[in-house]
Amino acid sequence: MKRKVSRREFMKTAATAGIMFSAGTMLLGQGNVALAKDMQPIRLPQPQSADGNAFLKLLEKRQSIREYGPEPVPAAVLAGLLWAAFGINRPDGKRTAPSARNYQEIDIYVAAADGLYLYNAKESMLKPMLAQDIRELTGRQPYVKQAPISLVYVADMSKVGSVSDEDKNLYPAADSGFISQNVYLYCAAVGLATCVRANIDKPSLAKTMGLRPEQKITLAQAVGYPKKAT
Amino acid sequence: MKRKVSRREFMKTAATAGIMFSAGTMLLGQGNVALAKDMQPIRLPQPQSADGNAFLKLLEKRQSIREYGPEPVPAAVLAGLLWAAFGINRPDGKRTAPSARNYQEIDIYVAAADGLYLYNAKESMLKPMLAQDIRELTGRQPYVKQAPISLVYVADMSKVGSVSDEDKNLYPAADSGFISQNVYLYCAAVGLATCVRANIDKPSLAKTMGLRPEQKITLAQAVGYPKKAT
Repeated sequence: MKRKVSRREFMKTAATAGIMFSAGTMLLGQGNVALAKDMQPIRLPQPQSADGNAFLKLLEKRQSIREYGPEPVPAAVLAGLLWAAFGINRPDGKRTAPSARNYQEIDIYVAAADGLYLYNAKESMLKPMLAQDIRELTGRQPYVKQAPISLVYVADMSKVGSVSDEDKNLYPAADSGFISQNVYLYCAAVGLATCVRANIDKPSLAKTMGLRPEQKITLAQAVGYPKKAT
Repeated sequence: MKRKVSRREFMKTAATAGIMFSAGTMLLGQGNVALAKDMQPIRLPQPQSADGNAFLKLLEKRQSIREYGPEPVPAAVLAGLLWAAFGINRPDGKRTAPSARNYQEIDIYVAAADGLYLYNAKESMLKPMLAQDIRELTGRQPYVKQAPISLVYVADMSKVGSVSDEDKNLYPAADSGFISQNVYLYCAAVGLATCVRANIDKPSLAKTMGLRPEQKITLAQAVGYPKKAT
């Protein structure tokens, strides 16, 4: 992997900041088991000035938007959105978001006016699942129905091995979070509006979607264009 | 918000793809409650060619790396990392990652050779918590100790209102996932290596960190520079 920041630049920024976090040397603190009261708070340099990379600029625009305009989301934009969310980004089949133990247990369902689709990352396809507009079932808030697209994140627990009950709750939720943040950032990049939510009648939605018992809805996320100021 | 893709470009890409996902019109499917078997699978256009934005390029580099070199992480880089993770990106105090009902319940602890710090986004500060190298306690895998930085995500459940047990598990995990993906992408942007994990002796780590009973460890994430090929 090519570094964007040169070694010389590291040293310069580190010198400016006065400290470095190192694996091998101790540049902060007085000992290994000293009391924290002997340590000084560290004022972090302004990240915007210290590292003006495009990703930080993109993050400045990351937000939840709950008012959507009527403009449809073109298929090419949806394709980018889904690839960003959980597409395959390496020849070994690994994805744009991590998953616990690489279970890749999260499926993305796409609810649109025309029906419900399942994203197949490998084939770069949308598989039709239901010829019904179920968007209003994907959340309890009024804006849910306005957005042209509602993504529904569903964990296929049959792909998750024998883990503790704690991890059975943790993995699908965290793994959905990774994906959802990709969606947020893609939306910020192309001017789409988006909002994630957990406030869903999950049993009812699962029934309508025809999910198997081992499929568990975690979150849903609206996507569309922001409503124009009138 | 300014759109990166013009209306004309929408129409062009939509026409190329042959479909659009719309809130108001049905361009796919034959009716509202028709059977899915009447619907055709949709082949998604290649996102890379359809929308060559810099964010998709960044996502191509998103990966977990488990081998770290000895190079320290300069404070300026750490500042960018933490701001990207869960910094304040709007005047109203909202952050670079969403959180359930805007509880903002996730705290980021930074474990380094020199000690344990708590990230204070508002002050852009690291508050010293423990003058002890606890990195090896932040995960069970051998690489954990090699990485110069280990971020520990801790949910302060005292900030989470009265919600169902299901949501008590879901919120901290998903909210950690959003943040962790920001860290992944910042690392991809500046050439850092990173790897998230849930495989942690959480009771032991919580005790060493001196956490309150209402603080719940969700995930930890190693950060450093990738080990150089020899």
